[in-house]
Amino acid sequence: MGMTLTEKILAKASGRNAVEPGENIWVDVDLLMTHDVCGPGTIGVFKREFGADTKVWNPEKIVLIPDHYIFTADERANRNVDILRDFAHEQGIKYFYDITDRSNFKANPDYKGVCHIALAQEGHTRPGEVLFGTDSHTCNAGAFGQFATGIGNTDAAFIMGTGKLLIKVPATMRFVLDGEMPNYLLAKDLILHIIGDISVAGANYRTMEFAGETVSRMTMEDRMTLCNMAIEAGGKNGTIAADDTTFEYVRARTDKPFEPVYTDSDAKFYSDRRYDVSQLEPVVAQPHSPDNRALARECSDVKIDRVYIGSCTGGKTEDFIHAAHILKGQQVKVPTYLVPATQKVYNDLFTLKYEGQTLSEIFLQAGCIEPTAPSCAACLGGPKDTFGRMNKPEVCVSTTNRNFPGRMGDKSAQIYLASPYTAAASALTGYVTDPREFL
Amino acid sequence: MGMTLTEKILAKASGRNAVEPGENIWVDVDLLMTHDVCGPGTIGVFKREFGADTKVWNPEKIVLIPDHYIFTADERANRNVDILRDFAHEQGIKYFYDITDRSNFKANPDYKGVCHIALAQEGHTRPGEVLFGTDSHTCNAGAFGQFATGIGNTDAAFIMGTGKLLIKVPATMRFVLDGEMPNYLLAKDLILHIIGDISVAGANYRTMEFAGETVSRMTMEDRMTLCNMAIEAGGKNGTIAADDTTFEYVRARTDKPFEPVYTDSDAKFYSDRRYDVSQLEPVVAQPHSPDNRALARECSDVKIDRVYIGSCTGGKTEDFIHAAHILKGQQVKVPTYLVPATQKVYNDLFTLKYEGQTLSEIFLQAGCIEPTAPSCAACLGGPKDTFGRMNKPEVCVSTTNRNFPGRMGDKSAQIYLASPYTAAASALTGYVTDPREFL
Repeated sequence: MGMTLTEKILAKASGRNAVEPGENIWVDVDLLMTHDVCGPGTIGVFKREFGADTKVWNPEKIVLIPDHYIFTADERANRNVDILRDFAHEQGIKYFYDITDRSNFKANPDYKGVCHIALAQEGHTRPGEVLFGTDSHTCNAGAFGQFATGIGNTDAAFIMGTGKLLIKVPATMRFVLDGEMPNYLLAKDLILHIIGDISVAGANYRTMEFAGETVSRMTMEDRMTLCNMAIEAGGKNGTIAADDTTFEYVRARTDKPFEPVYTDSDAKFYSDRRYDVSQLEPVVAQPHSPDNRALARECSDVKIDRVYIGSCTGGKTEDFIHAAHILKGQQVKVPTYLVPATQKVYNDLFTLKYEGQTLSEIFLQAGCIEPTAPSCAACLGGPKDTFGRMNKPEVCVSTTNRNFPGRMGDKSAQIYLASPYTAAASALTGYVTDPREFL
Repeated sequence: MGMTLTEKILAKASGRNAVEPGENIWVDVDLLMTHDVCGPGTIGVFKREFGADTKVWNPEKIVLIPDHYIFTADERANRNVDILRDFAHEQGIKYFYDITDRSNFKANPDYKGVCHIALAQEGHTRPGEVLFGTDSHTCNAGAFGQFATGIGNTDAAFIMGTGKLLIKVPATMRFVLDGEMPNYLLAKDLILHIIGDISVAGANYRTMEFAGETVSRMTMEDRMTLCNMAIEAGGKNGTIAADDTTFEYVRARTDKPFEPVYTDSDAKFYSDRRYDVSQLEPVVAQPHSPDNRALARECSDVKIDRVYIGSCTGGKTEDFIHAAHILKGQQVKVPTYLVPATQKVYNDLFTLKYEGQTLSEIFLQAGCIEPTAPSCAACLGGPKDTFGRMNKPEVCVSTTNRNFPGRMGDKSAQIYLASPYTAAASALTGYVTDPREFL
């Protein structure tokens, strides 16, 4: 019987010819990622369970990425990065993206920024591989035809010591997206639409496989936006079949061999949904849940206090290009925060020109707050001094991935998740705004 | 009045607000490329005209790429590379992709391979810039929304000394490609179809601008295949508007700033043609001209002696993936030569897996000759000992760009230009073959 992409990767990683949903299998891990929030905990469990002097299973297959609470005076946060650094040196971890000079982040050539985008940009996301990370949005890398999912510190410590993990094979829900994308829709609209359909528990412990001609036409950054939010529907992981677009992206960033696998034509799906994207409209997720979907135009009476464009989900180069497309030559009405996901994205803001101006010139001329250093920043609140943190019960339109109470700081703050188009359009009016008004 | 993409780049490069086709203007050059065949001549003219001790205009804006006659015992050919090397050292040329150990090309970390693909892979092809190269297929880089064209040694020497060149602004012919690509067509079919329509002189000294939804869905490698062959219709250059696909490709390879420009909606075109690609069929260019078009199925009685998959036009990673798609599990009936364009492509052949096998395993199992070192090789004949050179009046199906008499060696050899699909299908039958027989 046929297998899905996820089943095939897991079969290979467990040394079997075939696996079925529900089976518990031991898989060989290709890469373990951890960051400054969960890394210290993972390292603590590893030292306790395996011994303080034990060597990790493979120092070339562990990636340590400080990214969460970086630009803060908070001592505990800073100490977390120190713990990563000590461990990286003790163990000879090959990929440690260190930051030592917080006062001038540009002076840290090793520092990358938000882990999920950094993993992709540094060539760590490869088709057919198994990636575990101590962060729920690790599913982002499914965009590369990889099995990638978030785990807790204990599992991560076990992998650190053994390179293996016992997991249950998820069943696969397929989402086929066909049709021509209207010029006012972005990948974020599609995934918010889907999550609105199936709810935040709709894909619990299942794979969300995205397919169809709309997906095959997407850039890698768009595909990441889809897979990144699989976890917001409870998904174990998201997947998209690797193709020439994937190969061009990955091959520019790594010479490592990889082996893409593909869903068989007779694979069995838990469910199989189809969407004609040409029929969809710009949407938002209203407070306080990613599945609380509404059409952007239905929320036009929602007055907002700020706009936030950033995070692994909505702070990539193309997200900023989309925002600039709306903001160019206009004036924002509310404070607009721009947080590039990575140093590379930050660099793009100052070097990539759009109709004669750099992106950052467009943003500054539109009255946005100057783009800040790359990190997770206020996407998940963070210490009080975090850039863009919602310290008051205000209303924000954000390109991030979660709008749970307190996610961006204040517990009563209201967050509307939206595409970069919708976020930018809302910045221009001070209300939740359908981007068609500016396109 | 509006301008085309090419006119806008040239206006900017000449410090004007606007230019019109037919105007002669001085442009500031962003990059000059030369290789082992024309480099020595260019250097000779430069030394004679500017003085042997004169410094070049900008050692960071000249790229020297040995690629043509590399893996040969021919002394003159080898001396050409020595001349490039001496000049690079004298002048402190930043980008010199040297080869010193011909017996083991993999031991040359600086060596890249065929200049047009190397330029792209090393991040030298940037939207909005002006690139001149001493090679007619320099137009390849138009795929990046760049003005890129081939020039002679004298012009190149002038640029070496001054960074400027006087050129006539070309008029723009637009080719709008719409519709869904059938699974048996590749970009090569489209450009051979177009050249068949307009003839090898159909775009003489004009820009060929490729647009439409089919193009916007193409990967960068596909777009390069289109622009690469603009010269085969006499075009001064080819262009494709930069988009997110372009940015993902370029940004992975360079941090240099660039400024994409776009054709105005009221731009004036010399001509404007539309194609519905869903209606096209696989084609070949019969001997001895790239515009001698026939449907592949019309040539099924043409017996062939060999197949050649290589060159800047047809030796990229995706070209080999396409060939592997046809060849996997099959047996070739004629000698099949595989020449990756660059070291990166060569590496891909041995690391990229397709349905459980590396590309090179698929090729070897199908009976192809082992992939050789990257270079222009037999695409343009070369010294007698060049890999794949046609030393006899045989018949070849080739993914290269030219089938003039003697182009691949023997003056009576017959070359059928074709897509990687058609070339691979032909290898399996020993006749020119429509790839639909194997898809």
